[in-house]
Amino acid sequence: MNDATSSCDIGMIGLAVMGENVALNMADHGFKVAVYNRTVQVAKDFVARNPSTPGGLVCCETLKDFVRALKKPRKAVILVKAGPPVDMVVKQLIEAGVEPDDIVVDLGNSLWTDTIRREQEYAKQCKFFGSGVSGGEVGARFGPSLMPGGDPASWQHLEPIWRAIAAKVDPATGKPIEGASPGKPVEGGVPCTAYIGPNGAGHYVKMVHNGIEYIDMQLICEAYTLLDGLLGMSKDEMSRVFSEWNSGDLDSYLIQITADILQQKDPVQKDKPFVDFVLDTAGQKGTGKWTSSNALDMGIPANAIAEAVFARCLSALKDERVEASKHLSGPTPTPVADRQGTITAIRDALYCSKICAYAQGFQLMAAAQAEYKWTLDFGTIASIWRGGCIIRARFLQKITEAYTRNPGLTNLLLDPYFNDQIKQGQANWRKVVSIAAQNGVWAPAFMSALSYYDGYRAAHLPANLLQAQRDYFGAHTYERTDQPRGKFFHLDWPHPSRPQLDIKGTGGGH
Amino acid sequence: MNDATSSCDIGMIGLAVMGENVALNMADHGFKVAVYNRTVQVAKDFVARNPSTPGGLVCCETLKDFVRALKKPRKAVILVKAGPPVDMVVKQLIEAGVEPDDIVVDLGNSLWTDTIRREQEYAKQCKFFGSGVSGGEVGARFGPSLMPGGDPASWQHLEPIWRAIAAKVDPATGKPIEGASPGKPVEGGVPCTAYIGPNGAGHYVKMVHNGIEYIDMQLICEAYTLLDGLLGMSKDEMSRVFSEWNSGDLDSYLIQITADILQQKDPVQKDKPFVDFVLDTAGQKGTGKWTSSNALDMGIPANAIAEAVFARCLSALKDERVEASKHLSGPTPTPVADRQGTITAIRDALYCSKICAYAQGFQLMAAAQAEYKWTLDFGTIASIWRGGCIIRARFLQKITEAYTRNPGLTNLLLDPYFNDQIKQGQANWRKVVSIAAQNGVWAPAFMSALSYYDGYRAAHLPANLLQAQRDYFGAHTYERTDQPRGKFFHLDWPHPSRPQLDIKGTGGGH
Repeated sequence: MNDATSSCDIGMIGLAVMGENVALNMADHGFKVAVYNRTVQVAKDFVARNPSTPGGLVCCETLKDFVRALKKPRKAVILVKAGPPVDMVVKQLIEAGVEPDDIVVDLGNSLWTDTIRREQEYAKQCKFFGSGVSGGEVGARFGPSLMPGGDPASWQHLEPIWRAIAAKVDPATGKPIEGASPGKPVEGGVPCTAYIGPNGAGHYVKMVHNGIEYIDMQLICEAYTLLDGLLGMSKDEMSRVFSEWNSGDLDSYLIQITADILQQKDPVQKDKPFVDFVLDTAGQKGTGKWTSSNALDMGIPANAIAEAVFARCLSALKDERVEASKHLSGPTPTPVADRQGTITAIRDALYCSKICAYAQGFQLMAAAQAEYKWTLDFGTIASIWRGGCIIRARFLQKITEAYTRNPGLTNLLLDPYFNDQIKQGQANWRKVVSIAAQNGVWAPAFMSALSYYDGYRAAHLPANLLQAQRDYFGAHTYERTDQPRGKFFHLDWPHPSRPQLDIKGTGGGH
Repeated sequence: MNDATSSCDIGMIGLAVMGENVALNMADHGFKVAVYNRTVQVAKDFVARNPSTPGGLVCCETLKDFVRALKKPRKAVILVKAGPPVDMVVKQLIEAGVEPDDIVVDLGNSLWTDTIRREQEYAKQCKFFGSGVSGGEVGARFGPSLMPGGDPASWQHLEPIWRAIAAKVDPATGKPIEGASPGKPVEGGVPCTAYIGPNGAGHYVKMVHNGIEYIDMQLICEAYTLLDGLLGMSKDEMSRVFSEWNSGDLDSYLIQITADILQQKDPVQKDKPFVDFVLDTAGQKGTGKWTSSNALDMGIPANAIAEAVFARCLSALKDERVEASKHLSGPTPTPVADRQGTITAIRDALYCSKICAYAQGFQLMAAAQAEYKWTLDFGTIASIWRGGCIIRARFLQKITEAYTRNPGLTNLLLDPYFNDQIKQGQANWRKVVSIAAQNGVWAPAFMSALSYYDGYRAAHLPANLLQAQRDYFGAHTYERTDQPRGKFFHLDWPHPSRPQLDIKGTGGGH
């Protein structure tokens, strides 16, 4: 290992598929990469399989070797399972010789509050830095979207590498530049990475990205169910519909792969559609759940994002659903006469719902910004999602434009472009929700997005009645429409069903 | 204080309105109650204002006095703000002389996991016991619903007091016995309390009670908005509608107080409806949020309960909504011709949605039972909510009957009674959701409950497509419909948009 001493530009710890692919991506861009894995053989095999990358991979059998192999300030990237393993590796790195000026990057799906804690906890031993990464294994290999958060001085050291390995978009069209292959990365273009903010900001934004990804996927599934349930389309027909949608405003990676998936034949039951043999139970790994819980904690109405998480929960109850389907009645879907009109209506419902979902995600990031005193650049965040990541879409260019027009935009719905899109699509959106309800077709995300829209545009909600109830049973007090905000009143409820009490505080926890 | 030494049956710490009222309730039932408050004057005034209760109140100026005043095993009830104050008081009690056999009851709205922790943490110093209480200040005074959880031996000591102070229902009708007044509690009847289970079970069940309360209130608000928006009813007319509903299946405390509230005139703007001057921003204290977060954590599709929490979040964004209302378009509600039919339809939508909301709450408790190895008696839980608490309703009798018919009932929707109710009401429910969507009337809970129903009764959900997407971009694998559960497959996706990779694990965190 002596020949590698202080010669590597960066190091990667954790060689599951994501770690390997990011390491190869770095090496393809000419960086010399030290690699380490707890099971040494994994690292040996990995380097043996990839003997001649442009930058070179250096197998390190111990963490001491790994630390010795890195140029100072050392840049050590960790890509292990989120949670305690991250702390374990950081502590091992410190024992192995990492110094206070060295940068330890957590590239995993860590909870942002862990990243905030870790930066503080290890401040005397190293510069702990959190970076989100999205794009699955292909993105990791040929260009992911990277959301770095931490000390700005550390970012200066990481930036050249991050910009090199990130996905690139064409500056003219805003579309991802495709065509990378092993050893031949994309040249030029605008990299899909930018400094997000201090401490946990990168991981927070990555989490919201995933929350949005949940709802994006759910909305597509609902469109698919409606095309199936209302129009009885074949999978090939649906594939063509999604392909067509992919040439318009809905142009995105997820719509494109949906078209691919729907035309895919099953590998076992030849000539039959693949999706017909996939069990309808969706897994999840927690980031959508975190996004929803955080929305609840911060009081942000991200109901459509949460609905997408609950939809996965419901899908997991397969046996219960099969049993329930035998007992619970519903209407028989009525075949729809206006085929092309219905397809267009479903597309509009999908697009309007998608706008609301992104509005919720950005509303959430705005709340986190206030909570953690970050300064997030929403236009830039949307722009680095244009390539590399799972939610990459033409649509994101529109979000960047919206925040460029008005950096202080309160809600995406208020941007003229999105406002206009919903104006055009909402009659169809409402029609689709109405048809789904009448026909018993499951459309929770379309419905919750519509609820969000109708609630957000309501100057008056019925919460006056709700607050009156709270004052009635719990003396929780209320504000008045004819008095300034912040003045609280309590009515001495005179109804005979309620014995008179000497009210002096608030009761109950409602 | 010497005259009080070891003479008090029980003690109360924390004399906000709930603590005072529970103490008076106990004293009304002949129990001698030691009372303590951090600000001594509060306790002095309280006892001075209530000189001649049947049991008697004893003012304790220090916690040492308080501990000395109690009969052994001592029973000390804490009713302070949930969170760190509870631990502070327990520690002070231990310092003041509480012994290992003494029972310290937390009657506040504590997070159940705190109760589990506290029972263990203080096990050597006292028997820590958690009891939920619901009923607001009136319930606390004249009979709440009590949900005790902890060591069964401690419960034996508490049971006589808990049964005495709890609300009572008429065993023949299942309805609460009203008519209590200071010094004259209700005699006879079935008490609304029963041992729930060990450690945090009582507080858990109380939390779910509150989550259900959130959605119960939200559903009423949506019915009110629809009566207003679609039928243009006056508040007095609506009050009569709710009164009428209160004589049928919807008979409940919340429907009854809604009728009261809607006929209430404003104390300032005389002769005008009170609710018209209540600001439409609802507060919350966290238990609904906890319920929803826990549902997300346990993977239970309690979407309607979460929707009710998000509805409060949205209501709080008053300024944003007022601004948005000027820019975001929507349809003009079309006045509905069939007035009586629409009122009935809204009632049916409310009832069907309510059944789903309770189904979610009980599904959640069933999941917690498995998670914490509790043995919950769902029929009994429903029965102790029949009186005293905010969600008390005739409906709960039906839930008790359902679990009596089938103690292993997987989901309330599968009980013949509830199944039949939804069968009867669902056409109207669907109609109301459809009308709300078409007319731009906000109805998130009606919609999410319907989504839950349609998703739960679906043998096939579109999660097959979603899981195929996850396998496509992240190699997350899938199960097959033609293979046993638990076998996972991965497709080597051949589409040209995706470079071939040597797949060896899962990537991304989606």
